[in-house]
This record gives sequence, C-alpha cells and structure tokens, in this order.
Amino acid sequence: MSSIFTKIINGEIPSYKVAEDENFIAFLDAMPLVKGHTLVIPKKEVDLIFDLDSEEFKNLWGFAQQVAKKIEKAIPCKRVGVAVIGLEVPHAHIHLVPLNAMQDLNFGNERLKLSTEEYQTIQDAIKNA
Amino acid sequence: MSSIFTKIINGEIPSYKVAEDENFIAFLDAMPLVKGHTLVIPKKEVDLIFDLDSEEFKNLWGFAQQVAKKIEKAIPCKRVGVAVIGLEVPHAHIHLVPLNAMQDLNFGNERLKLSTEEYQTIQDAIKNA
Repeated sequence: MSSIFTKIINGEIPSYKVAEDENFIAFLDAMPLVKGHTLVIPKKEVDLIFDLDSEEFKNLWGFAQQVAKKIEKAIPCKRVGVAVIGLEVPHAHIHLVPLNAMQDLNFGNERLKLSTEEYQTIQDAIKNA
Repeated sequence: MSSIFTKIINGEIPSYKVAEDENFIAFLDAMPLVKGHTLVIPKKEVDLIFDLDSEEFKNLWGFAQQVAKKIEKAIPCKRVGVAVIGLEVPHAHIHLVPLNAMQDLNFGNERLKLSTEEYQTIQDAIKNA
C-alpha cells in the first residue's frame, strides 16, 4: 500500500505544495508545530532516510536547503530548524520548522489548526519567496 | 572569539570524537539526550547551517549519513533521528540522536550525565562500527 506521502505526490490526497522537482517535493505539514512548518520528501518511497543512496541523500538535502531559504524569507523567525524522526509515517521526510525558540521544535507540542486561507497564504509566501 | 566547537576542533577543549575528515568532525554531545547522541559539524565556523554553500552543505550531510550508519550499528535504537536547532552555539551543528520514541528528540528533556568510562565505551562502539 502506498504511504500517505506517496498519495500526496500522486495528488490522491490534496496538499499545499511549495516546491517540486523530478525527485523531491515540499509541502506544508497538515498539523504544523508553527506557521510555515514544511515537509521535504523524496518521491521514492523509502522508510529510513539514511537508507537513501549517498547521491540521493545529498541531493534531497540540497533540495531542502533551497526550500529552507524560501521559508527564511517568507516566515518571520530566528532561523529554520530541522528534524527527522519518522516513527509515524514510513516514508522518509525532513521537517523544516521556522524557530523562534528551542521548544518550537518539540513534537509533543499541540499542533496548530489553520484555515484553508491561512494555509494558502503561507503556501504562496514560501513558493514565491 | 572561537566558538566552543572550534575549540573542540583545535583540541583546546577535549571531546569524544567518533569520525573526522578534512572538512567535518563528529563527536559525542557532552550533554546527551540519550546514549549515542552525536554532533556533526563543519570545521568551517558558520552560524546558520543553510548559509553553507550548496556543495559544502551537501557534503556535510553526506558525512553525517556515514556517521548515522555507524550509530545505527553501535547503539540499540529504532532509528537515528536528526535535529538542527542552533539557538545556543553559533556554529552550525547536526544532532544525530538514536531514537526509540518521538520524545527522545525533545530538547527540553533532562540530559544524561555519563561517566568517562561510559563516554569512552560509546565512542569506541560508534568509531569502530
């Protein structure tokens, strides 16, 4: 069965995409820790990020760097933090999270509930940064 | 003034190194969240990780991947998690943290206090994995 992220890649589940190329895609986290919380994933379905081959792994991070620079421009924050956990969805994904404090990256925090308009505004801001 | 990490690179402050090449170094976090918590840094002193140029950035992650694979072999865990926060030390660093639960990556958790012998055992296990 396809992972939920593969369904997003294939457009079977809607998402707020902010960047995409042949191999990678970035979209807003549906349950963000803070506004601008973005997921970056390889289109190839692999569970453990460190199992990607060396070139794919490095290119995924190169793509994430470009997305992070857009987030830095679009979302007021001290810096963009990074987390890879992956215990919930077995499809490697990088969290990019605009940080103002260390605890902004605590995945035990309550998630934000945003309106469609708020997601779209954030999506446009990052996409066009 | 040199960052605390530059002092570690230069050997002015002792550390438990687990990997090193010309450009990057990995050593055990002195205040680990869990056993095996490792920091990976560029020798070049830069604050924001996303400010590294594209090649350096990708190579840093390539180096981190090799270290993570050693940690996976050396430390019992479900997977190796990743975090970049950087609000405390202005020298870019990647946290590699062996995870058994999502909350193992919560930087608000109390840190472990290990003995010299424990650090050395972990260092040897990762280095030789």
